[in-house]
Amino acid sequence: MSDFKTVQELKQLDPNIAAPFRSIFILRRKTLKTAKNGNPFLSIELGDAGGSFTANCFGDSEVFAALESVVEGSIVRVSGKTEYFNERFSPRLQAAEEVDPSEEEAQGMLSELVEIPPESEEELWADIEEAIAAIEHPKLRETVERVMEKMGPAFRTGTAAINMHHAYRHGLLEHTTHMVRAARALLPLYPQVDGDLAIAGIILHDIGKLEEYEGDFAAKVSRIGTLQGHVVLGFRTARKAALESKLNTDLTERLEHIILSHQGEKEWGAAAMAATPEAVFVSMIDNLDAKMGMVQRVLRNTPEGEEFSEYLAGLQTRVLLTPPDKS
Amino acid sequence: MSDFKTVQELKQLDPNIAAPFRSIFILRRKTLKTAKNGNPFLSIELGDAGGSFTANCFGDSEVFAALESVVEGSIVRVSGKTEYFNERFSPRLQAAEEVDPSEEEAQGMLSELVEIPPESEEELWADIEEAIAAIEHPKLRETVERVMEKMGPAFRTGTAAINMHHAYRHGLLEHTTHMVRAARALLPLYPQVDGDLAIAGIILHDIGKLEEYEGDFAAKVSRIGTLQGHVVLGFRTARKAALESKLNTDLTERLEHIILSHQGEKEWGAAAMAATPEAVFVSMIDNLDAKMGMVQRVLRNTPEGEEFSEYLAGLQTRVLLTPPDKS
Amino acid sequence: MSDFKTVQELKQLDPNIAAPFRSIFILRRKTLKTAKNGNPFLSIELGDAGGSFTANCFGDSEVFAALESVVEGSIVRVSGKTEYFNERFSPRLQAAEEVDPSEEEAQGMLSELVEIPPESEEELWADIEEAIAAIEHPKLRETVERVMEKMGPAFRTGTAAINMHHAYRHGLLEHTTHMVRAARALLPLYPQVDGDLAIAGIILHDIGKLEEYEGDFAAKVSRIGTLQGHVVLGFRTARKAALESKLNTDLTERLEHIILSHQGEKEWGAAAMAATPEAVFVSMIDNLDAKMGMVQRVLRNTPEGEEFSEYLAGLQTRVLLTPPDKS
Amino acid sequence: MSDFKTVQELKQLDPNIAAPFRSIFILRRKTLKTAKNGNPFLSIELGDAGGSFTANCFGDSEVFAALESVVEGSIVRVSGKTEYFNERFSPRLQAAEEVDPSEEEAQGMLSELVEIPPESEEELWADIEEAIAAIEHPKLRETVERVMEKMGPAFRTGTAAINMHHAYRHGLLEHTTHMVRAARALLPLYPQVDGDLAIAGIILHDIGKLEEYEGDFAAKVSRIGTLQGHVVLGFRTARKAALESKLNTDLTERLEHIILSHQGEKEWGAAAMAATPEAVFVSMIDNLDAKMGMVQRVLRNTPEGEEFSEYLAGLQTRVLLTPPDKS
Amino acid sequence: MSDFKTVQELKQLDPNIAAPFRSIFILRRKTLKTAKNGNPFLSIELGDAGGSFTANCFGDSEVFAALESVVEGSIVRVSGKTEYFNERFSPRLQAAEEVDPSEEEAQGMLSELVEIPPESEEELWADIEEAIAAIEHPKLRETVERVMEKMGPAFRTGTAAINMHHAYRHGLLEHTTHMVRAARALLPLYPQVDGDLAIAGIILHDIGKLEEYEGDFAAKVSRIGTLQGHVVLGFRTARKAALESKLNTDLTERLEHIILSHQGEKEWGAAAMAATPEAVFVSMIDNLDAKMGMVQRVLRNTPEGEEFSEYLAGLQTRVLLTPPDKS
Amino acid sequence: MSDFKTVQELKQLDPNIAAPFRSIFILRRKTLKTAKNGNPFLSIELGDAGGSFTANCFGDSEVFAALESVVEGSIVRVSGKTEYFNERFSPRLQAAEEVDPSEEEAQGMLSELVEIPPESEEELWADIEEAIAAIEHPKLRETVERVMEKMGPAFRTGTAAINMHHAYRHGLLEHTTHMVRAARALLPLYPQVDGDLAIAGIILHDIGKLEEYEGDFAAKVSRIGTLQGHVVLGFRTARKAALESKLNTDLTERLEHIILSHQGEKEWGAAAMAATPEAVFVSMIDNLDAKMGMVQRVLRNTPEGEEFSEYLAGLQTRVLLTPPDKS
Repeated sequence: MSDFKTVQELKQLDPNIAAPFRSIFILRRKTLKTAKNGNPFLSIELGDAGGSFTANCFGDSEVFAALESVVEGSIVRVSGKTEYFNERFSPRLQAAEEVDPSEEEAQGMLSELVEIPPESEEELWADIEEAIAAIEHPKLRETVERVMEKMGPAFRTGTAAINMHHAYRHGLLEHTTHMVRAARALLPLYPQVDGDLAIAGIILHDIGKLEEYEGDFAAKVSRIGTLQGHVVLGFRTARKAALESKLNTDLTERLEHIILSHQGEKEWGAAAMAATPEAVFVSMIDNLDAKMGMVQRVLRNTPEGEEFSEYLAGLQTRVLLTPPDKS
Repeated sequence: MSDFKTVQELKQLDPNIAAPFRSIFILRRKTLKTAKNGNPFLSIELGDAGGSFTANCFGDSEVFAALESVVEGSIVRVSGKTEYFNERFSPRLQAAEEVDPSEEEAQGMLSELVEIPPESEEELWADIEEAIAAIEHPKLRETVERVMEKMGPAFRTGTAAINMHHAYRHGLLEHTTHMVRAARALLPLYPQVDGDLAIAGIILHDIGKLEEYEGDFAAKVSRIGTLQGHVVLGFRTARKAALESKLNTDLTERLEHIILSHQGEKEWGAAAMAATPEAVFVSMIDNLDAKMGMVQRVLRNTPEGEEFSEYLAGLQTRVLLTPPDKS
Repeated sequence: MSDFKTVQELKQLDPNIAAPFRSIFILRRKTLKTAKNGNPFLSIELGDAGGSFTANCFGDSEVFAALESVVEGSIVRVSGKTEYFNERFSPRLQAAEEVDPSEEEAQGMLSELVEIPPESEEELWADIEEAIAAIEHPKLRETVERVMEKMGPAFRTGTAAINMHHAYRHGLLEHTTHMVRAARALLPLYPQVDGDLAIAGIILHDIGKLEEYEGDFAAKVSRIGTLQGHVVLGFRTARKAALESKLNTDLTERLEHIILSHQGEKEWGAAAMAATPEAVFVSMIDNLDAKMGMVQRVLRNTPEGEEFSEYLAGLQTRVLLTPPDKS
Repeated sequence: MSDFKTVQELKQLDPNIAAPFRSIFILRRKTLKTAKNGNPFLSIELGDAGGSFTANCFGDSEVFAALESVVEGSIVRVSGKTEYFNERFSPRLQAAEEVDPSEEEAQGMLSELVEIPPESEEELWADIEEAIAAIEHPKLRETVERVMEKMGPAFRTGTAAINMHHAYRHGLLEHTTHMVRAARALLPLYPQVDGDLAIAGIILHDIGKLEEYEGDFAAKVSRIGTLQGHVVLGFRTARKAALESKLNTDLTERLEHIILSHQGEKEWGAAAMAATPEAVFVSMIDNLDAKMGMVQRVLRNTPEGEEFSEYLAGLQTRVLLTPPDKS
Repeated sequence: MSDFKTVQELKQLDPNIAAPFRSIFILRRKTLKTAKNGNPFLSIELGDAGGSFTANCFGDSEVFAALESVVEGSIVRVSGKTEYFNERFSPRLQAAEEVDPSEEEAQGMLSELVEIPPESEEELWADIEEAIAAIEHPKLRETVERVMEKMGPAFRTGTAAINMHHAYRHGLLEHTTHMVRAARALLPLYPQVDGDLAIAGIILHDIGKLEEYEGDFAAKVSRIGTLQGHVVLGFRTARKAALESKLNTDLTERLEHIILSHQGEKEWGAAAMAATPEAVFVSMIDNLDAKMGMVQRVLRNTPEGEEFSEYLAGLQTRVLLTPPDKS
Repeated sequence: MSDFKTVQELKQLDPNIAAPFRSIFILRRKTLKTAKNGNPFLSIELGDAGGSFTANCFGDSEVFAALESVVEGSIVRVSGKTEYFNERFSPRLQAAEEVDPSEEEAQGMLSELVEIPPESEEELWADIEEAIAAIEHPKLRETVERVMEKMGPAFRTGTAAINMHHAYRHGLLEHTTHMVRAARALLPLYPQVDGDLAIAGIILHDIGKLEEYEGDFAAKVSRIGTLQGHVVLGFRTARKAALESKLNTDLTERLEHIILSHQGEKEWGAAAMAATPEAVFVSMIDNLDAKMGMVQRVLRNTPEGEEFSEYLAGLQTRVLLTPPDKS
């Protein structure tokens, strides 16, 4: 893609030649330090989906000025020359500037900058939109629409977790869409479950994570996330939208209950145990897709030829990666 | 008090004489049954703080008509004659009528009908009122006042639990007042704790229990209590009052956080772990007074002469009841 | 159905008249006792899906001789006269004989004798048969067929549990069929999962329960169930069939792994943690249908008018039974 | 303070100039190694409250001779020249000698050598002395006095823990004093609690830690601490003093019980569950002050400007450090 | 054995004839009640190893006077006539008197009054005596002897538990002897274990139970047992004897450590984790013999013909009782 | 032993002289890397029982060719010259070749290459052989013999664990032999335990570990170990041998049950709880010898002079290493 180099491509260049390069990276960490001579310099870590490296920018340089006020998690366009220091790749940067994530060039590089799902954001989102449109009860549909009006853009890009399943850009959108698809496939088998409520509950179940985490490309727990947790934050958002949509009390309580109970067990953060057919249904599908998402991700990310993945804490085992022998 | 007989007094009457009596009891259970001859009859359990008994009211009687639509947990005035059936006290009722709890006669009997704290409701409530008035930050004070405007009467009578500590009428008021007093005694020792926030947080910390339980004299978990739990219900009530009082975001979040975290551990229902000085302070005082409340109750209720109380699940032991030998 | 009376019907008869009756029941418990005069008598408990009662058969009676060697859990046809003893229904039996469950009359009463699923055994089994036929890999299909050849009849009638989900006649068949349907609905969404293996694994996952429990209409854990548990018993059965079918080692191990890991957690009895896409998939669907099965059962069995079910240990809560208010 | 340099001050000196310095540090670790040429050298770690560094002293040097027999945890006065090796501060020491902690110069540096509480040892101890004097029961007071006669000096300097709350010099004194103050504030609210016993119990509750840990400025668990634990060690010490003071059996057992039960839960090391009003009271105040002590410490130690502390294992969360917005 | 009847023998007599009888029983429970006519009567439960019954003694009878001051757990000689009330065996007592357990007649009945081990007290104790004599270290041997001098008689009769393993008369002696035998058999295989210490530790490991429980034939937890637990009580007893015997500090600490750590896990009451070869050895043998003792007891007590025992909480399963088929 | 140098001996040579050496090591890790110039090289780790070092072999060298296809865990004979790089020992290898473990030279070095038990393989195995020969029941003996015919050689060398007790070469043989000896010592004390079954069960209890782990000198969990676990693998092996030996069903089930239950608790991997006298006996002896084995190993391996071992996770404490003071 273009002449931009990824971290891996840069590291494969002949280390004995100072090669000029251009690229787009995420500014992962930025620390202001003082050199032994008393002068300030920036120690920065730049990275993409395939790796990262560290570089130093001295206080009197152009790059120092350009990066001084850029926040961690931003996308930056840099140019420089390859260089090695103590056998570690540590290029000399010559120019740097922040790039807006919506800029065309950044968009083109996005899949190489950060881990993203195999399906495009558009495909995934289309299914969410269709599922919302298919909610029959007008005020329930309106409730979901109101949340998405406000949260939609964040919902389309946010991660579903920091350490566990679907922990990558668009991960929340992917996980939610997969749950919607699973629910629609299963609803005919469990007629006791109200489809409208289940679908609305699924779309909103993790909405609190958009407030629990902060930082665009390097998520960490926010202040309000520490103080309240995503279950209560999602409850709050859904409740507000339901009140504005004049949803009746019964449906409001059932919708809220799905959010409050979806974590399954109190020690995992559930505020209540699932006590309606819809809440049991949603919390089980959440668990199913979370676990299957971990499997899908290691199948995608482990280098070919490995028989087993690394040990996965979420599954308490390694995953067998080779396909079944159907001969 | 008056000529009304308690259950214990009735049972001490000579069983060989059908003695006429009048009394006031709580209707604890009421079941409609069908006699062998096909006729309906009511099997009812009547009780007071010291005991209970069962009586049958046949379908064609005046008492049947009087009690048919009275709900469980109501106070009833009855008259009848003592009678024994198979050696069990089972009086023949001749008249019955529901009594409003605010009625003078009921008030007079209240302390014999249900377990109540040793201090009067008025004394306890006066301390709450004074503590509210002493909150310096006007909007924080207003927030607490708004909640009490709506919830006050229920707050003054409700129980703090069904099975655990302070599980009796006015128990929530007693527990909250004790916590307020403990906090005021301790605040000078922990200057890192903001007194306004701690007091406001204490007063509201269990407010959700007023919605979690229902039934005046025979509490059970309500529908909304099952679906949301008292932590989220209290959060919701406090949040609404804070928004109406235009409390700033920082204080609102800290107040909400006290409620969300006061249970201490996630498996006990905390939505978040206490992360502010005030939240740690309140959750520790809650635990202290809950445990001390169990001790105070068994000291109060165990018959004199016993060395140890029954085994208490909440303390995982029996409590030594005899005073220390200070000779 | 016919002139046979159910337990509930018998108990509704006028207690003051000794009414003759005929009926079919299950012999739930049978104990040989000695009367005060030294004579032996049988104390038996007879019951159907709606209740039970106790009767005594004295040693010199015809009924004693007829029931002496009938084992608990058998179906018996009895006739007698209604009678009450100490206000408890305790009829005098005049004749009794064991009935073969396959006998027409017994079949006709079956739905009144024991709890059974809403769908008929035939409908459920048809789906299993179709799913087996749809397994594409010949030796995998043969493996499942071999198991069903031997275990099929037991599989069609056995319970899925003694105390937990699907704990009733045909419960294992119902649970397995529901899982097959759920898997087929979800397979298109998780292409990483091999459909043949998942379906074969589901059909066999609980097959060990047929040896873990014994007794036709009153299941209890068998000797081999205590010594090995259903996970190992199922593994053993599947392994034998796979070896006889000359299934290749890879597929054999993956099929066995699904059985060994389906319980999800080691403390729930899993011998290994699910480590293949198919094993994760099956164990999640097992959990989903087990929980939904509990919901479906209380919705079916709780008397109309109740808002909440009893507390269910398997869900750690009561279930809200009323339908959502979609107005 | 004087011309002694702290570790931080030394590290801020111009690294390109070998600056002479004098200072007082704690000898944290000392290891005898063999150089490649076969000669012995000491690798030592010196530190103060603000940091530490490593230096090597070769076998033929004066410093080697001076430090060879000094034990870890001692205070040493050193002089030398700043030097950097591989960019790490690693000064060349020219002279060293052990300093007695009671020496004036050491005293002056103490607050910079080790973490200590904000209140002075004298202030804290004065409150303990006053509390002891206020114990009304003569033999109970004598019991506490006997323990303090023997343990007092160690009690005034020891740490309350290695890793958890109040884990610093004078930490045990601070924690105990805070508990005494809290108890005195709360006693009027819980008249069921005997004040004499509660205060005596608090003062002695952790006395076993003085034997459980060893090493003056670098605590580690002692042999007897591993074999018995501080609960039993404290019990032993209190029991001996009570016997010597001829305290009656009832009070002796109640005092011992407070020590044996103060850890709250068996898995935290309690030998018995708190079963007297005093034991419940003390164990709850212990928990309250332990948690509040963690909050106070991070508020004190975290650099200004941070919104949240590091994650604290003892509180299972980060602590919000900014003061409430009382505007 | 004599003409005394056991409970089972009495219940087998013809219920229609009031047969005179004499017997010796344990007075299990004794409650003073008031009859409907206001007169006092004693409701007593008498029992032996094979069963129990209830009888009433009215206030004006000789038996009332005889039993009024006899404490629960005593042995009583009674005579009376068999009688049935409401089909329950409820004899009319005519005379009663307390019997000293050491009295010949009581001794002769002991094995029928209470559950005892299959080996006689003398055989078991002989092995303990021999094991003590074989301790080579004089002061260690003296330490054990001193404990036994004081505790010996109680040690020979006491129970090892209330609910768990070896929970019967002489149970502690039996369990300890079995452990001594096991240790002596295993010591040659683990030469790292000091035999003297291990044997001394075993003999004293549960000595605290003699103070933890009280009541001769109907054990319950004593006051000091509740306040301190048997681990600390045993530690205290052993420590005192070791000090009196001038045992050196090292051996004293190791002996105490065996007692403090023998429960294995902190939540089971261990004050410290086993940290010497002897302590690990003793705690493992304790666990082995406790579990094997449960097996031996159900093999002894379950009626012939049963395939499995009842569910045993201590083993978390039923035990297969039939012998292996060695054909 | 010969002129071969161990890792420790090599590291003690004068670092300033490039000394030629020969030795035998285990190839612990082998990674193919690409140098900056694009050329391949092997980074290898070589080690013995006392330490390890890393060396690089470039693509055009003789050593590269020699090691390219040698698998990790093999024994290699190397020669080279000592060399230091960045102060780390990193010798220049000049020749290398794989050595068969059975080769005389390798055998001579084995005790220095890997940790092994203090007793020789021959002594340990002789006890197993004798114990097998002493099994009286012919088909039970044949069952064990059949397993050993196939598994014997692996059984004699395998480890009993990767991280826990007896985690070294011949560790399984040592642990099993110790258990056999302990069982034979204890059997006379527990006559309820069938000796034949207990001994057979012990010999086979961990046999599944030979399939659970793979790699001769650097064990890791195998594919089948991940999918089934050693409990099921051992069950499978024992079952096959029992069927081939025509062992009767009862003994087969009891033998299998010992294997299935020996882990003691379900969360430790037991498929069933021990429910026969033999299974309880074996699982307790397994636990005893596992814990004692940890003690024996730290006593063996900790450098003289240390008072305590490192903290051992398996014992949850440090172990006191000094012998008791028997003066």
